[in-house]
Amino acid sequence: MTVELHPAMARAFEEADAAVERGEVPVGACVTGPDGNILSSAGNRTRELYDVSAHAEILAIREAGSVLGKERLTGCDLHVTLEPCAMCAAAISFARIGRLYFGAEDQKMGAVENGPRFFTLPTCHHAPEVYAGLGESRSRELLTQFFKERR
Amino acid sequence: MTVELHPAMARAFEEADAAVERGEVPVGACVTGPDGNILSSAGNRTRELYDVSAHAEILAIREAGSVLGKERLTGCDLHVTLEPCAMCAAAISFARIGRLYFGAEDQKMGAVENGPRFFTLPTCHHAPEVYAGLGESRSRELLTQFFKERR
Repeated sequence: MTVELHPAMARAFEEADAAVERGEVPVGACVTGPDGNILSSAGNRTRELYDVSAHAEILAIREAGSVLGKERLTGCDLHVTLEPCAMCAAAISFARIGRLYFGAEDQKMGAVENGPRFFTLPTCHHAPEVYAGLGESRSRELLTQFFKERR
Repeated sequence: MTVELHPAMARAFEEADAAVERGEVPVGACVTGPDGNILSSAGNRTRELYDVSAHAEILAIREAGSVLGKERLTGCDLHVTLEPCAMCAAAISFARIGRLYFGAEDQKMGAVENGPRFFTLPTCHHAPEVYAGLGESRSRELLTQFFKERR
């Protein structure tokens, strides 16, 4: 059985594929607006930009804020191929993202189901609805292949 | 008794003062290089840039990476007027900051002594040495005044 991905998650995977081509860790993200249309998308660019904060999620959130002319993306959703880290989970909270959809979990750096489980903490003041496991095996395969070739 | 602040923390406070003038939450940060000289400094610009990630720490780390042409700021230190949040704590870890000096603790959003206590977690793969309470009362006064005028 083939399961179709939501177009925004499909875009996130295109961004992850493009990140591999640039030698970046293969993670992609996509923000959709309140109408469900794609507002922004990005893949990791930490190496290219010499910027540890240039994770796919942060870049997509920054671009969406720029497109909307607003700091808070109320009513917007984020689709990302991997479980967000603590940096990105906090940014997702600050941006008031409504729903977070992600692919594979990340036991090493994840902060949603792993590590700090940021959205469950009293110091987290907005938590999105979370949907995990979308495109999970593809996400995991991309990362496994990437790190096998590098390490 | 007057205690002199380290020049990098003094710069961080200048950035916090400048942030207030722009209507931003008064937090400032400064990165010093392995030689102790100032590499970069910034204050919050989340409102101006429509960017939830534009905390003082993130902007200063990004600028230092750009100055050095490196993603990782090994041997560099970060001075910030307030306890970093989870987003910034994770970025500090990713950037391999050696020493973190901060002013007042932040019980609401802090992630070093409060909340996730990020640097103590197994999913944190580099922790800086942490020195807290530098310019603490000045940091707290800036924030108290700011929020009293706004809320």
